Amino acid sequence: PAAARVVQVERDILAENDRLAAANRAWFAERGVLALNLVSSPGSGKTTLLARTIADLKGTRPLAVIEGDQQTDLDAERIRATGAPAVQVNTGKGCHLDAAMVARAAASLDPAEGTLLFIENVGNLVCPAAFDLGEGGRVVILSVTEGEDKPLKYPDMFHAADLMILNKIDLLPHVTFDVDRCVDYARRINPKLPVLSLSATTGQGMAAWIDWSLSRRPAARARAGARSA
Amino acid sequence: PAAARVVQVERDILAENDRLAAANRAWFAERGVLALNLVSSPGSGKTTLLARTIADLKGTRPLAVIEGDQQTDLDAERIRATGAPAVQVNTGKGCHLDAAMVARAAASLDPAEGTLLFIENVGNLVCPAAFDLGEGGRVVILSVTEGEDKPLKYPDMFHAADLMILNKIDLLPHVTFDVDRCVDYARRINPKLPVLSLSATTGQGMAAWIDWSLSRRPAARARAGARSA
Ligand SMILES: Nc1nc2c(ncn2[C@@H]2O[C@H](COP(=O)(O)OP(=O)(O)OP(=O)(O)O)[C@@H](O)[C@H]2O)c(=O)[nH]1
Ligand SMILES: Nc1nc2c(ncn2[C@@H]2O[C@H](COP(=O)(O)OP(=O)(O)OP(=O)(O)O)[C@@H](O)[C@H]2O)c(=O)[nH]1
Ligand SMILES: [Mg+2]
Ligand SMILES: [Mg+2]
Ligand SMILES: [Zn+2]
Ligand SMILES: [Zn+2]
Repeated sequence: PAAARVVQVERDILAENDRLAAANRAWFAERGVLALNLVSSPGSGKTTLLARTIADLKGTRPLAVIEGDQQTDLDAERIRATGAPAVQVNTGKGCHLDAAMVARAAASLDPAEGTLLFIENVGNLVCPAAFDLGEGGRVVILSVTEGEDKPLKYPDMFHAADLMILNKIDLLPHVTFDVDRCVDYARRINPKLPVLSLSATTGQGMAAWIDWSLSRRPAARARAGARSA
Repeated sequence: PAAARVVQVERDILAENDRLAAANRAWFAERGVLALNLVSSPGSGKTTLLARTIADLKGTRPLAVIEGDQQTDLDAERIRATGAPAVQVNTGKGCHLDAAMVARAAASLDPAEGTLLFIENVGNLVCPAAFDLGEGGRVVILSVTEGEDKPLKYPDMFHAADLMILNKIDLLPHVTFDVDRCVDYARRINPKLPVLSLSATTGQGMAAWIDWSLSRRPAARARAGARSA
């Protein structure tokens, strides 16, 4: 029946994606590249955070960015303005990056040994959860303007994350948002999820995120080994 | 090949959805029900707006709500607290409501003649754009915390909308958001798109939205006739 055919096609798509993600992971491991996949709702502050992160990390190690959006080069242009190389991927009707898109974009960036490669996914708290890109870490960004209940209502994304960043904390005085409750909800979905609160515009809390991204390197290599075994 | 098979399955899914959406539209027209499909990023304020809208409209006509979320009954509970009937649809892995889900939920609500039926879609600025629910109007909600560029970067949703609501204008003093630029971007995608600015929490600007929703009724009947012809 039609429904069974749909399920089968979806399964095939995910299986093919997993195969390409494993190849990406091996390719990143060979080059000592740490790839971080940033996912969030539209407008949670992914690009703002990346621009500031690049400014903070500049000179310490090679940096590169893959930008995913349905349309426009706006985000890649914002990244290039910081001095880091960026490739824009436009997904058109598509709602997430997949491993094939990342393979092509990464090849064109040709990252040097030891590069920290940020992948900004399409703003979407649902679909990117299912698509492994071969990353060494997945970072979900939630902003305090979105409400505390997002982890419960969009659980797949929080379940699949290695780190949650709570962004826009500069706006806490102006919104009704209970940080502790939000963290509690996120940990109901993902009990060991680390959470960092920060403001990408004021810079408050950035240091802990910078430390996390620098300390993540070895875990990525270990994971690549484990998965390709 | 695999890619062609995927495209064909996607086409079949959308064709089947369009067929069911047309049936919904005819069913709504028969009962004089105006269905409004509210779409936005997660956390733009759909449920907050609906709760306040119901409070403002109560007693004027029958009201009902279909709530779409991946998980939880939280939004339906918030609506029921206002006194309006609400059905929660949980999409699980799914990223949007489809016409079949709405048909089932609408049947269980069994709306009286003349009901104003609000459908809150899953928070997602991408996937719901492709799925007609048989609604009489589609309302995209963008909040001023998300940035002005969303219409350009997620154009399908703004192209498919009959109204854009710019929400959370109470936060304008605390964010960098250029309302005129955002409206300009939205009109590049959808030149005749009406735009209403409001705050669902303070109530500023609500009256124009209430007027729009009440004046929308005849257009819905006309569209139903045109599409089923
Ligand atoms: N107040 C405040 N605003 C922020 C912060 N971070 C980002 N913003 C604002 O939020 C809006 C969206 O920021 P972006 O960085 O474009 O968000 P994004 O997640 O990259 O958006 P998409 O790529 O379109 O999904 C912009 O207006 C930013 O200025 C923050 O920490 N505090
Ligand atoms: N300052 C301000 N906050 C608002 C406004 N409208 C909604 N909010 C807040 O935004 C957050 C999300 O609001 P919701 O109404 O749950 O948003 P939603 O679009 O229904 O979210 P999902 O159903 O999860 O996609 C909550 O913390 C609300 O209090 C507004 O006009 N101004
Ligand atoms: Mg961005
Ligand atoms: Mg809601
Ligand atoms: Zn999708
Ligand atoms: Zn989807």
